[in-house]
Amino acid sequence: MSVKYRYSSKVDRLQSSAVRDSLKMALGRESISLAGDLPAEELLPLDAVKEAAGRVFRSGNGALQYDLTEGYLPLREQLCGRLAAKGMTIDPDDMILTGGSRPAIDLIVRALTEPGSVVLVENPTCLTSLQVFHLNGLQVIPVESDKDGMMMEDAERLIRRHKPALVYVVPNFGNPTARVWTAQRRRGLVECCRRHGVLIVEDDPYGELKFDAKARFPTLFSIEGQVSGGCVLYTSTFSKSVAPALQTGWVMGDRNVIRMITKAKQAADPEPGTLDQRILDQLLRHFPLDIHLRKIGKLYRQRMQHMQTLLREQELSGVSWIEPQGGMFLWLELPDGLDAEALLRCAVMKGVTFVPGSPFYALEPKRNTARLNFTSTSRDQMTVGIARLADAISEFTARS
Amino acid sequence: MSVKYRYSSKVDRLQSSAVRDSLKMALGRESISLAGDLPAEELLPLDAVKEAAGRVFRSGNGALQYDLTEGYLPLREQLCGRLAAKGMTIDPDDMILTGGSRPAIDLIVRALTEPGSVVLVENPTCLTSLQVFHLNGLQVIPVESDKDGMMMEDAERLIRRHKPALVYVVPNFGNPTARVWTAQRRRGLVECCRRHGVLIVEDDPYGELKFDAKARFPTLFSIEGQVSGGCVLYTSTFSKSVAPALQTGWVMGDRNVIRMITKAKQAADPEPGTLDQRILDQLLRHFPLDIHLRKIGKLYRQRMQHMQTLLREQELSGVSWIEPQGGMFLWLELPDGLDAEALLRCAVMKGVTFVPGSPFYALEPKRNTARLNFTSTSRDQMTVGIARLADAISEFTARS
Repeated sequence: MSVKYRYSSKVDRLQSSAVRDSLKMALGRESISLAGDLPAEELLPLDAVKEAAGRVFRSGNGALQYDLTEGYLPLREQLCGRLAAKGMTIDPDDMILTGGSRPAIDLIVRALTEPGSVVLVENPTCLTSLQVFHLNGLQVIPVESDKDGMMMEDAERLIRRHKPALVYVVPNFGNPTARVWTAQRRRGLVECCRRHGVLIVEDDPYGELKFDAKARFPTLFSIEGQVSGGCVLYTSTFSKSVAPALQTGWVMGDRNVIRMITKAKQAADPEPGTLDQRILDQLLRHFPLDIHLRKIGKLYRQRMQHMQTLLREQELSGVSWIEPQGGMFLWLELPDGLDAEALLRCAVMKGVTFVPGSPFYALEPKRNTARLNFTSTSRDQMTVGIARLADAISEFTARS
Repeated sequence: MSVKYRYSSKVDRLQSSAVRDSLKMALGRESISLAGDLPAEELLPLDAVKEAAGRVFRSGNGALQYDLTEGYLPLREQLCGRLAAKGMTIDPDDMILTGGSRPAIDLIVRALTEPGSVVLVENPTCLTSLQVFHLNGLQVIPVESDKDGMMMEDAERLIRRHKPALVYVVPNFGNPTARVWTAQRRRGLVECCRRHGVLIVEDDPYGELKFDAKARFPTLFSIEGQVSGGCVLYTSTFSKSVAPALQTGWVMGDRNVIRMITKAKQAADPEPGTLDQRILDQLLRHFPLDIHLRKIGKLYRQRMQHMQTLLREQELSGVSWIEPQGGMFLWLELPDGLDAEALLRCAVMKGVTFVPGSPFYALEPKRNTARLNFTSTSRDQMTVGIARLADAISEFTARS
């Protein structure tokens, strides 16, 4: 008898990520990718990482051992220092380091929900977080949202109705829309969730990628003010600000919640190695991260502006977007009736990729939307890429 | 209204690991740990890792980017070469790299089971794997086992009765018993599972840590012979053979199963950084790993023999063990009626820790059992540690 493999129904139902599919479709072609979510490679601080690694190796064999589930303590301490400077007072014990941003969301969900629990999300919202929610069997319900964030009336209505386990938000330059929540909406959601005793997961991977270094966007975590007994769990990562390869993110909030997340992590990955964390710790001691972030912000703004200029020059009727203030993405609204998944197949033929918007919607996708990445292509590539994209769009609009 | 945190019932029910508890109890004391599962720190190949990292950094900024979910291809290719030399013919596409051994088990379970699915395990079996099973809501059923592995009659009876999703085994120097399955039992289980169409997860983290370099222990994977449509998923790690900090393990088997595991990993951690994998890849190109493994085997055998000698010298009546042929642990049977958890509390007072055996049993623990680690203490520490342990045991046996 041959083995009949049985798969988890939750995993079986997961759609293969459209981001990855479009990347694969373009493999082996002379294709320009506006589909990815990679940081600009030329700004990755290789020398600083190399020097930091050198210091770690000089510290002896202990650097190659296992470490605590909670993560390397000196890095947690340093991180607390950085966060304090941003008005977030936190103790290393209120924090757990994770293998990046997505594993952080996964651990939060595993610790704080049951299959069938409800999570409220912005509409649209981060595709990879949606996949984490589906992997864990959650019921995902989108809250009506506009360019300023979730609409508070709808949020309150859905909280009353569903008593969600979590409300998941990305208030700064979220993937895919790059929307920035207004201060009013931030305060509104914190107050609403406090009133109903509901926990917010504030996911902030892009917060440091702002185009105006002086701009200040208060985190929901700092608006809440209270760590112990508070209604906000905050999570972020060094993947976008330093380097993806150093695989380090964190979650912070009420100590009992962090303890439960630690318990979930202990079961899944009891004694992680922490070479990445040690390298990051050494790097942060010597590397001027804030200057580096200003450099990143400046380059990304230039690229975003170049992309906007190129799109405007194409004079594509029915195509619109809101200018991002940070992050990595430009969110396009395409002409009514244009299905971005069909457009992608055409674009691939012409040598450019992007991510269609549908999979970012938990329900009822707006099919005439698309996410363009502007961080990882050079000026020249982008010029060619947008021309090809415009060409594909025109082909569709000419038809209708 | 203050937030009432709600926790996942599965995580809430997880016991905090006894290994970690005993480690914590001993913190801050002049304590000798026989509780851990750390490799001998003096043999960690720091220089080789440092040189490998140097080569990775010289390859350019791309080393700091994201990589494929399946893991760094050149490492998968090299690994296939190593495995072929051991009679396991495998293609890089039949394999996924993971962040170590435990995350591998977690992904397998997420991809191939539902909450409530049955997994059969040896009795006793690896504590951290039990925690992964509980985290994922599995029903864990132990198969009667002796020093040679699972008893085939009971395995067959339970397979018929429960139609398990998985049979989980550690045939080489398993944690905690260090038992080595006989060739007959290995063949027996493969045949039985093939007959019933049931998937075996062969977890082999310790297989390379054998005391007799010439000893050959055929893997269930090679006994099965068939990768596509086969009944064995094999998983192992570089954590014990090279270094824990390089956090790299792998799973191999039928390509469709690997694809489903990849899908689960995509959802949880879509685009991992792979600095660790790149370092490991470079290391394996230049470092004589097999010579290194012989060195490890030799040191561990010396330490194991020293531990045995010390235990024998203490002439503890009612204490017995089976001499390990590899791995990191000595599994003690204590006098009838002696509860190892009570013994641990006494031992901590005397300045030594170990892991009580109960949590390694899925059901009905044998309380008079204990796991001693012999890999990470020096000769002198071990001498003192075993004397203290004997002292604690004598105190208990004197009382009865």
